Amino acid sequence: MALKKDYWEKMVSLCNAEILSEISNSECTAYLLSESSLFVWKDRFLMITCGETILVNSIFYFLEEFKVENISSLIYQRKNEYLSSKQKTTFEEDVEKIKTKVSGVSLRFGNLDEHHNYMFYLDQKSEDTKGDYTTELLMYHIQKEALHLFNKENLDLKKVQNFLKLNEKLSGFTWDEHLFKPTGYSLNGISGKNYLTIHVTPLKENSYISFETNLNLKESYPNLLNEILDIFKPVSFDTINFNTEVNLNTSDAIRVSRIEDSLSCGYEVYFAQYTSVRDKVEKPFYVGN
Amino acid sequence: MALKKDYWEKMVSLCNAEILSEISNSECTAYLLSESSLFVWKDRFLMITCGETILVNSIFYFLEEFKVENISSLIYQRKNEYLSSKQKTTFEEDVEKIKTKVSGVSLRFGNLDEHHNYMFYLDQKSEDTKGDYTTELLMYHIQKEALHLFNKENLDLKKVQNFLKLNEKLSGFTWDEHLFKPTGYSLNGISGKNYLTIHVTPLKENSYISFETNLNLKESYPNLLNEILDIFKPVSFDTINFNTEVNLNTSDAIRVSRIEDSLSCGYEVYFAQYTSVRDKVEKPFYVGN
Repeated sequence: MALKKDYWEKMVSLCNAEILSEISNSECTAYLLSESSLFVWKDRFLMITCGETILVNSIFYFLEEFKVENISSLIYQRKNEYLSSKQKTTFEEDVEKIKTKVSGVSLRFGNLDEHHNYMFYLDQKSEDTKGDYTTELLMYHIQKEALHLFNKENLDLKKVQNFLKLNEKLSGFTWDEHLFKPTGYSLNGISGKNYLTIHVTPLKENSYISFETNLNLKESYPNLLNEILDIFKPVSFDTINFNTEVNLNTSDAIRVSRIEDSLSCGYEVYFAQYTSVRDKVEKPFYVGN
Repeated sequence: MALKKDYWEKMVSLCNAEILSEISNSECTAYLLSESSLFVWKDRFLMITCGETILVNSIFYFLEEFKVENISSLIYQRKNEYLSSKQKTTFEEDVEKIKTKVSGVSLRFGNLDEHHNYMFYLDQKSEDTKGDYTTELLMYHIQKEALHLFNKENLDLKKVQNFLKLNEKLSGFTWDEHLFKPTGYSLNGISGKNYLTIHVTPLKENSYISFETNLNLKESYPNLLNEILDIFKPVSFDTINFNTEVNLNTSDAIRVSRIEDSLSCGYEVYFAQYTSVRDKVEKPFYVGN
């Protein structure tokens, strides 16, 4: 895109995040944000935020500058939050704001009392969705080594790299990583047009890890998601795939539900929710005593 | 309790509910509220509310009148909500308010991203918890006949009675029932000191049914919960038991987690979360288009 860094800096600041570092190649620039990511290609961008950011503000900023006639596709996703009452807006409010600029369709993959994912998309057929794959893996409550490691004081990147071993799993990627204080880890990786990003929020009672890539995993890395699951050992996880279904080895978890749809904008979306079955009796959490 | 009806009317109104009808015997008076219930015995009371009521206001009203030295036990529970952003308070805010009057312990049974139940209790050993059983069955997404019936226009009580067949399942109970417009059903039942209550919110996308009783089910009605599950056929459900564990026939659902604790106030609490496994591919929900 012929947009300069100050454009993206403004966009990022509007949702209460900031650019910490960047990597780029001839196809893509990846900005690592405060526990978030922004990827910019010649003809598209992807922004992933977390915490108490207000992503809709960034979308609105973009829609103020670019007319809908010049936009081929827009997809806005929002997952179930741990503490939705702490969020500054609801999905419905976000959509109301976006709809003052463009018209679109809102849906929810999953029941409200389970893991779910809200999606809003521009109600027009996009030309170039073929071969455009996205795989998202949302992991809840990481366990064992991963939980221990990411909660270490004075953790250094070398230890994380040795734990994730991404260079052994993937080839040709340039990486950008950041450790947050007191805890938290973000990683962007790019290889040509491909990106891969991981965000780790290792809070002991409510840990959450997101993984996302546009790699054609089925073709290039059929075992990658299982390897990622084996690293983090989440109690439960969801997969969201655009234009590609990925089969998971689910010996540690059962698939509770599957929700699929052909969006009128041209994508096939596959949502699946997995959970481990905990036979062992657990204790309640003592809350702020 | 030597408290007149106007006392309870005030308590109920403070949380935005109202008394619709009542039944009583020598041991207990059961008030049927607007989609809620209040049971009053000589030495205790139980209030269950739903929707956008503010139950903490009723507790506060009670604590303003009665000194903690005269209260043997107080337990305040709050379950995960479908749309917590629509609630007027959070559990933490409720506890903050209660703690201006009494001191206690707050806990949460279950992970935040799954079904969970918050509990606050008075931090003192209650004398008379022995033989005090409570069984709660919280059902999500009822299916088939139950969903169809409770969404019927011009539903009459006779049809509901024929469907639930509670008189065949339980003996000696006096019942009080109410059908709400456009949908919704509440039932109170009392038999001596025993109560049983059912609240049905049959919204097609987010139905919820609560069942609660102080019957010693293990001894008197070992199959009752299975019969209730067989009536409503929920996609998922939780059980919360005080001082009694109830074994469920779970052929239609798997138990995902078990959380148990001995509360310092004298109760053993058992929480279990069950879900059905949905192999069939479902469609997303279209939201407010």
